[in-house]
Amino acid sequence: MQDRLHFVAFDVVTDSREPLADMLRAWTAAARELTAGRPTGSGDTGEAMGLPASSLTLTIGFGPTLFEAADGRDRFGLAAQRPLPLVEMPPFPGDALRSAISGGDLCIQACANDPQVAVHAVRNLVRLGAGVVKVRWAQLGFGRTSSTSAAQETPRNLLGFKDGTANLKAENGRALDRFLWVGEDDADWLVGGSYLVARRIRMLIEDWDGVPTAQQEAVIGRTKEAGAPLGQRREFDPTDFTKQTNGRPAIPHDSHVFLSHPTNAGTAMLRRGYSFVDGTDEDGRLDAGLFFIAYQRNPETGFVQVQRNLSGDALNRFIRHTSTAVFACPPGVVDESDWWGRGLFEPTR
Amino acid sequence: MQDRLHFVAFDVVTDSREPLADMLRAWTAAARELTAGRPTGSGDTGEAMGLPASSLTLTIGFGPTLFEAADGRDRFGLAAQRPLPLVEMPPFPGDALRSAISGGDLCIQACANDPQVAVHAVRNLVRLGAGVVKVRWAQLGFGRTSSTSAAQETPRNLLGFKDGTANLKAENGRALDRFLWVGEDDADWLVGGSYLVARRIRMLIEDWDGVPTAQQEAVIGRTKEAGAPLGQRREFDPTDFTKQTNGRPAIPHDSHVFLSHPTNAGTAMLRRGYSFVDGTDEDGRLDAGLFFIAYQRNPETGFVQVQRNLSGDALNRFIRHTSTAVFACPPGVVDESDWWGRGLFEPTR
Repeated sequence: MQDRLHFVAFDVVTDSREPLADMLRAWTAAARELTAGRPTGSGDTGEAMGLPASSLTLTIGFGPTLFEAADGRDRFGLAAQRPLPLVEMPPFPGDALRSAISGGDLCIQACANDPQVAVHAVRNLVRLGAGVVKVRWAQLGFGRTSSTSAAQETPRNLLGFKDGTANLKAENGRALDRFLWVGEDDADWLVGGSYLVARRIRMLIEDWDGVPTAQQEAVIGRTKEAGAPLGQRREFDPTDFTKQTNGRPAIPHDSHVFLSHPTNAGTAMLRRGYSFVDGTDEDGRLDAGLFFIAYQRNPETGFVQVQRNLSGDALNRFIRHTSTAVFACPPGVVDESDWWGRGLFEPTR
Repeated sequence: MQDRLHFVAFDVVTDSREPLADMLRAWTAAARELTAGRPTGSGDTGEAMGLPASSLTLTIGFGPTLFEAADGRDRFGLAAQRPLPLVEMPPFPGDALRSAISGGDLCIQACANDPQVAVHAVRNLVRLGAGVVKVRWAQLGFGRTSSTSAAQETPRNLLGFKDGTANLKAENGRALDRFLWVGEDDADWLVGGSYLVARRIRMLIEDWDGVPTAQQEAVIGRTKEAGAPLGQRREFDPTDFTKQTNGRPAIPHDSHVFLSHPTNAGTAMLRRGYSFVDGTDEDGRLDAGLFFIAYQRNPETGFVQVQRNLSGDALNRFIRHTSTAVFACPPGVVDESDWWGRGLFEPTR
């Protein structure tokens, strides 16, 4: 996972299918250059000149409104291709969503080890999309910094806790097939892809910082310094929900780890969150938190199921979900003639 | 110069001198720990655990309102210590300033090669300042990324041009004495310090991206790829304002380089700008630009003089100054007993 994120959601501003498909072809060609560290032709904006590719990856997603606009129209003749699981997230208790930073017809997730490279990529896709798409909202984020921290260490989020210890690992192919990759029971063009759910989770940092460490640990279900499951000593010690301390569960049953754990949620997702600090709000409080991205083979049995299980999460006192979005991400392009969305736009090919 | 910036301006919310001085002592002690990569005592928020110091530097500044509040009061008995040059910036043509992100009684500039380290430092100073200060506004920024680019290369700003080629260099001690460090003709406590002027400069990115490269180069006065002064070939070739191309000045007289150059502005500053991308505005345009920080021995003969000279700058079409602030930064602490502002708060010592 790279250090930086620039995530952007677009509204399509044309009602014609061909300009949209043309733009996706142009985006794919540009993405090939960008991910190789090369400029995007003569109109390139230039701020990445002299910088390496910086492990840039670009991921595209298609939102529910691409298949059926808010007014019910099938603007691009794609309704028949709509994957059944691609629906907006249901409301959850405590949601504080802002529609201006939610949803979108398309998204691009740009990840790189240099923010300038990620920003440059997004900016040039925006440039190439002029007249076809308009940026609806965007979010920048940061994670581990490879230059200063050991690659093996689990990074800490802005709550000060290690985040991602029990994430799905690339080595676990069986779990990836079960939880991550879209299977053959879904839309043809999406098989081998994944659903992306994005939630901007504002943390009430000042409230959290006023809570003693031991209480914070009870909320999370792990120790702060080591990141060990409560009742254990080391980060990767097994999470033992039967363990008792002073006659009570070592890991409280309203803790975040307890409620989100696959054992109790009955499912798993590939999480790919980035911290964000967007300055300060009108009250002088840090506008900061986690831009949570999760990939799963079906949002209903992935994020939605976990989030429902978190309705009694002790952490809810300290966080607010301020944006929501869901996108269907097709599998990667297979060869030089392939392009983002070809399977969707040319299904009979 | 480190890769990341977290800049924060504070309002002091108490009217008592002692709690303010106590906080500055506590901040200095915390800064000693933070810049050594250690936590700030038992209340530390923890997100930098396991991370190295990442070249963190912390710089404090005192704003004009610390010496005389907006209503004219001398809240802390500091009026007699006010340095004469410490006054708010005058208005400039084209200013689009927002007061909510301008000014401040105090500022902290946190720079580090890891954003989490910079954010952690600011957050813990905020925590230690509870009841004494409140965050007024904050700005995050990024520059060169040491992990992916050569340390020697001049970084590019979001206009795609190299920025900082002709900056003051640490090796040029004579110029630093003349332009950067406050001299003995100023307030005692500030001698050896510097004045910090901060301007959030929004770039009208989409307008700029629509301009052909040759025209962009005429606006800046340098070539885009190499960063050479127009009429020359390499970045560090001398800037020759007498050179003609096709019977006209190679470097146009309304270009940014021409008007800001020490030869024409009659002065110099130490620039320390960071790029920012704060997402997208309501119109879907990138809210991005340069958070410009300049250090000088006197704002009047530094930033103000240069900015006045830039009133006819061709670049003005593409930028808007959206915030302004000025702070007096004392010299660094000299020993373990010294603290930020001791010379100001204990002048007779």
